[in-house]
This record gives sequence, C-alpha cells and structure tokens, in this order.
Amino acid sequence: MGEMNTREIDIRAMALAARSAGRALALSTTAARNAALQGIAERLANVGPELWEANQADVAYATEAGIAPALLDRTTLNVKRLQGMVDGCRDVAALPDPLGEVFEGHTLANGMVLAKKRVPLGLLATLFESRPNVTIDIGALAIKSGNGVIMRGGKESLQTNIVLVGIVQEALAAAGLPADAVQLVTSTDRALVPQLLAMDDLIDLVIPRGGPGLQGLVKQLARMPVAYGGIGVCHLFVDASADLDRSIPLINNAKTQAPSVCNALDTVLVHRSVAGDLIPALVTDLTSAGVKMYLDEASMATLDAISIADAGDLLASATAEHYGVEFLSLQLSVKVVSTLDEAIAHIQRHGTNHSDGILTDSVASAERFLNEIDSAATYVNCSTRFTDGGVFGLGAEVAISTQRMHARGPMGLRELTTYKWIVRGDYHIRP
Amino acid sequence: MGEMNTREIDIRAMALAARSAGRALALSTTAARNAALQGIAERLANVGPELWEANQADVAYATEAGIAPALLDRTTLNVKRLQGMVDGCRDVAALPDPLGEVFEGHTLANGMVLAKKRVPLGLLATLFESRPNVTIDIGALAIKSGNGVIMRGGKESLQTNIVLVGIVQEALAAAGLPADAVQLVTSTDRALVPQLLAMDDLIDLVIPRGGPGLQGLVKQLARMPVAYGGIGVCHLFVDASADLDRSIPLINNAKTQAPSVCNALDTVLVHRSVAGDLIPALVTDLTSAGVKMYLDEASMATLDAISIADAGDLLASATAEHYGVEFLSLQLSVKVVSTLDEAIAHIQRHGTNHSDGILTDSVASAERFLNEIDSAATYVNCSTRFTDGGVFGLGAEVAISTQRMHARGPMGLRELTTYKWIVRGDYHIRP
Repeated sequence: MGEMNTREIDIRAMALAARSAGRALALSTTAARNAALQGIAERLANVGPELWEANQADVAYATEAGIAPALLDRTTLNVKRLQGMVDGCRDVAALPDPLGEVFEGHTLANGMVLAKKRVPLGLLATLFESRPNVTIDIGALAIKSGNGVIMRGGKESLQTNIVLVGIVQEALAAAGLPADAVQLVTSTDRALVPQLLAMDDLIDLVIPRGGPGLQGLVKQLARMPVAYGGIGVCHLFVDASADLDRSIPLINNAKTQAPSVCNALDTVLVHRSVAGDLIPALVTDLTSAGVKMYLDEASMATLDAISIADAGDLLASATAEHYGVEFLSLQLSVKVVSTLDEAIAHIQRHGTNHSDGILTDSVASAERFLNEIDSAATYVNCSTRFTDGGVFGLGAEVAISTQRMHARGPMGLRELTTYKWIVRGDYHIRP
Repeated sequence: MGEMNTREIDIRAMALAARSAGRALALSTTAARNAALQGIAERLANVGPELWEANQADVAYATEAGIAPALLDRTTLNVKRLQGMVDGCRDVAALPDPLGEVFEGHTLANGMVLAKKRVPLGLLATLFESRPNVTIDIGALAIKSGNGVIMRGGKESLQTNIVLVGIVQEALAAAGLPADAVQLVTSTDRALVPQLLAMDDLIDLVIPRGGPGLQGLVKQLARMPVAYGGIGVCHLFVDASADLDRSIPLINNAKTQAPSVCNALDTVLVHRSVAGDLIPALVTDLTSAGVKMYLDEASMATLDAISIADAGDLLASATAEHYGVEFLSLQLSVKVVSTLDEAIAHIQRHGTNHSDGILTDSVASAERFLNEIDSAATYVNCSTRFTDGGVFGLGAEVAISTQRMHARGPMGLRELTTYKWIVRGDYHIRP
C-alpha cells in the first residue's frame, strides 16, 4: 500500500466514491456492518510485522522532525494500544444499530401516517492529529452508523494509517461491503484541506479533532456543517454548603486523573464563606500531586507562611491569563467569589460550555446552577471527568461537541445519524 | 421610530444586547413568554395608521425601485394578512412550551443521575426578503422558544418592519421581558451582512430565508451553523401499480395548489408501463389548469396530434435544463422511466432532498422508495404540498431545512432548541 501516497490525489473523486459507498453502507444489514467490525478486530489482533514497521517508520520520521514528546508518544503504537483498538471495534459491534429506528410517529386527522426514521448523516470528513487509535475508532463508528468517511491524519502517522485503513478496507470487502466507504487521504499536501472544506455538495459533516489552529482554519473555510469540540475550560464552584472533606478528592480527581484531556478541571471557584477552610487543605492536597496552582489574592490570603513555603514553585499569584484557559496539564487556577451569582457570571464569561459543576449540599443552589449554567455537561457534585460517551451510555465517541446544534457533549453513534420524515397516505391532496 | 435607521448601526453591540436579553428570555416563565405573544396579537389587532402608512411608504419605494410584481405583492399588507399575523401569534402562544423538557434520563451503575434538558439555541440571526409576516412569525417563534433574534428584512419592507418590531418590543416590555431580545437591523448597508456572518462568538444559528444568491453568500461567509432550507426540487414517481385515476388530481394538487412555494412539484417521473394511460390524461388536466409542461421524447410519444394541438404553447419538449430545476411557477417536467431504480437514480441525481414521493399500490415498491430516497419528507401516495410545520404537527415553522444536521424538514419551536446534559451525583469521582 506504500505506493498510494506517491499518486496524485483527486480528492473530489475520492469523496464521490466514499459517498456512493456510504450509501450502500446505509442500506446494508446490521449483520454485515458488524461483520466488518469483527473483521477489523480480527485482523488487528493477528496483524503481521507490516503494522509495526510502518509505525517505526512514522516514529523515526517524527523523531527526526523534532515533534513534541507528547505527540511522539501518541504516535507510538504498542501492544496495549493495539489491544485497545481491537476491543474498541468489538465494543462498537456490540452496540445497538442506530439505523432504521422509527420514532415520533403519529396519524393525522386526514389519515396520513407520519414518522421519523433514523438514517446516516452521509459522508463524514475527519481531520485529526497523530493518534492511530483515532483512525480505527472513527472508522468503526462510521461503519456502524452507515456513514462514509474520509480521514486525514497527521503526517507523523501516515504510514501507520495506511496500514490501518488498508485493514479496514479489507474487512469491509470481506463482509461484502464497499471498501471505498472508509478512505484515507494519503497525501500530505496542505492544499487538499481547503479543497476538502469547499466540497459542501459531497461532505455532510466535518469533524476536526485538533487544537484551536485547526478549528480556526475549519471555521474560516468549511462550507458544510462542522462538529467542533474538545476545547474545554472546565470549572467547579465550591458553594458555601459543600461537603469540604469530599470536595477535595473530587477536585483532585477532576484535575489529575487525566490532565491532558478536555474535561480536566481548569478553575476552582470557592465561596468566600468556606475559602478559609477549603483552600489551605486543597493547596496541600494538589501541590502534593504536583499541580501548579494560581491563586487570586483572596485565596492566597487564606494560606499561612508555612503553607506558602511548603508549596514552593507550585504556588503563584493568579493573573487574568490564568482564567478562561484550558491548561491540558497539571495547572489549576483558584478564585474566591462572594456569591453563587458571581460564580455563575465567571463561568458564563470564561467557560467554553463544555463541562462545569457545582459542589453543594443546597438543593436551591444546585437547581439554580443547573438552570443558569448552560454547559454541554452541567454537573452537581461530580468530577468534570465524567463527560465521556462511554460513561454517558452512548458507547464510543467521535468527539465531544461544544456547539449547540445537532448534538452537545459526547457524540456517539446516534449523533452520527439524522432522520427523514416518512409519510404514507392514500392519494392524499392538500386542501 | 423612523429615526432609528438614520443612526449608525453597531451590529456587534446589538448582538451582545440581544444575546443577553435572550438569556433572560430563556430563564423566563412560560406565562411571561405567552403574555408577550398575546400582547403582540393584541397590538396588531388594534394597530393604528402608523403601520398602514409605513407599509404604503414601503410599497411606494418598492414600486419606484421597480421590483418584481411578485415581490411587490408580498410586501403589501392588507387586513387579511394582518389577521393572519394576529392568528399566528395566538397559535404559537397556544403551543406547548418546548423549554425545560427533561428526557432520556437514566441512572448510572455508580448512582449518578443523567438526563438531557431542553434549552434554547441562544441567539438567532435571520436574513429574509420582503414578506412582513415573516417578521412576526420569526419574532413569535423566537420568543416562545426563549431565543434572542436579530432580523434583517428586505429594504422594501424596512418601514413596515420598524413598526412591527416596535410592537414586538413593546409587548415584550409589557410582559416584563427584555425588549432587546428581538431586534431589527434598520440599516440597509450591505456591509453589515458579512459583519453579522462573522460573529460566530455571539450568534448560534443563521437562518437565511431567500433564494440561491443569499444562500450562496451565507455559505461562503457564515462562521456559525446555518439552517439552509426552502430550495425544493420536488419529484413524484408514478409507479406501474399506481391508481392512475387518483394520481392525476394528486399531481395537479402538488403542482398547482401553491406553485410558488418550495414543496410544489417540479418533475413527474412515469413508469413506462403506464405512460400511455397516464400522460395524455395528465397533459389534458394540467394544461387546462394553465401548467406549462416539458415532456421528454417518450412522454411526447404518448400523445396524439389532437392532444398536442390542444395544449398549444403549454406543451414543449423537455431539455436537460428542465430537470433538477425549482420552477416556483406553473411549470412541470415529465419523464418516462423504465424501472423504479431509474426513478430513484433520477431523484438522487436531480433532487434537493426536500420532498419526493412515489404513487404506487405496491408495498414492495413503496418500501424500497422509502428506504432508498433520502429526502427530508419522503412520501408514499401523498401530495408533496404536505411538507409544512403546521401539517406535520410542529406548529408554525421558521424554515424547511434541507440540510442533514440538527433538523430536517419543517423547523418549528422544538427545532429552535437544543439540550444540555444535567448530571447529579454524590461527590462522585471517576475511577
């Protein structure tokens, strides 16, 4: 398959083929789509040296290009990661088929029968960075939901992705489905991205999985709908009535359990009446876990000299730039607020409507927070880390949407579908 | 209010105010929002000469500018149209409140309780042509669904719209709601449209109600989600087993009942086996109703010389340009096809996925058509004219969406909302 990326890419022809193959997928049986997913799992579980060699080539290329260690790590395959991909395919195969569901049916007074029927979106395009597991995840979700998909991964994963997409296409063909439904853009020519984003007549949804740079480019150029997601400036507000002993491990979990992901905590807001009790203990707990903390003046004033000395470099005064920022690392800002209103106003101003929560034992405060904060996931007494398709019961996810149209929060199989109205009559005419 | 349009417009400040007012609307009671709608109805029912004077000024301006008669007619208010607007507000007030609905709730194994809660989209922007009733329709739907809205109507309706939006704002204030939630762009400066379409940080959805020119501009410039709609190239396929006697009045209805709207029929496909029986009768029926018909060769061959002579100028040979076109007038193209597959392929190639149907007495053909045609409204044995929010039971509509994300077909109150996940726990942490 290595020769693929030396050919000139006709991205329009590729999209036409993927779209037409996607239509066949949309009309295929659940059994055939699941067989393709099991086939991918099987092939991955028994993969030969070609995958490891391709990945080694990518890692060598990435090392030479001097990419960041975090990216390099994400590029590197190992047995555990491969097993995760195998399990992921089997999990998606085990999920219920989202297609064909008929819902909101009703009969009109004139006897016409209306219902909505769930159908695939059509053709997806995904732009993503290095992680090879994304290739398999998205391929599996697209197949199960009956969508065609064109993928463009990072340059530093190209050889790995060529092998992986080859496996997906083999499994599709073996299940009697059109291999063209899942396609990889094997050219690293940057001019292809604007071309892709202009094909609104062929592509129904673009899913950019990357940082603000990629999202900005897509916002500027995409003529079709886009599922933006993943940027989460997440807040927890510790209300006056919160159980402080239980709040500290929860905040620790939200910050440290997976600091590099979008639902990790960025800012803690603390009600003034509990600041003196909470903040010193919180600083001890989090700095022990290696978290660098940025405290506003009122938070800092709750600490004695010994605590400040103990925290050392891990403690700093907060400035404006420490609020409304997605740290994606072991950093956290803290701010004292005088009222629930002030906390709500801060989150409305600085948040990204991803995952925000209140810690409180007051039902009134909880309900006000749930009403007035309008985040994709709005929490009472939970770690922000729970925002996840698997946890929410949607199965695997393609993205966590932070926009308001179509789907908010985790986007799983059902969020890759839409509906059509099917209407049956008896030669009805409109009076 | 006439002086409004002499001020310089700060469209960003306007959007900020509308967004913030929309938030208050989102948190308001159903009773307050309904009171505002009843207030608009009341004020319109008792409106003084200022509305008629403003509309006369618009009509005079439009006449002088030499706009098309159809546009001029749409601009002109009369008592019947005003009564329609009054009734429209009362109808929307009577619809159930879409906000606050809690759905798809479930409890996780760890005891956390999740549900989706229905919330407004946020701030809408609508760009539309002349009809003043659109101003009231959209204002009413936005208020009921808790959304702020910025409207920009046609230049030829400006004075009328200033009076109408003034009435909406008065009614909002009288109901204790922020008047800023519904705003009219009173400047006709074209540069404001690109400015508006770049404000993706403030505007959650753009609804362009206009022709392909407006939609193309929005597609190119809008950085936020857009509800495209209204362009319908609609097909009916008369299958071999159709009841021909009942098909003719149905086709007549689909074509002639309201020829200028998007769900009006554009092309009839006829199965070869019934072409000889159907087409001569269809030509007689439709040309009698003043429909200009474009027939392909096979269709023309079904007619005798007398029929052709009778039809006169209303009959012409079809060329490629008569298929895949939205006529919006008393014109119709006809084509003979040999199979259901050929009909499906024609619709997939030439349709806009708006409203397409089959006329058949065969369950197998009906089911295949319903499966393989993927239009927002896919019909069996119904006129395409039924695609309408009121008919479908959604209440009034802001648009008929022809895109796939979020909502397809008629967009009513619920389609102007989204959801957030609300999650209640007991200091849960993610293991």
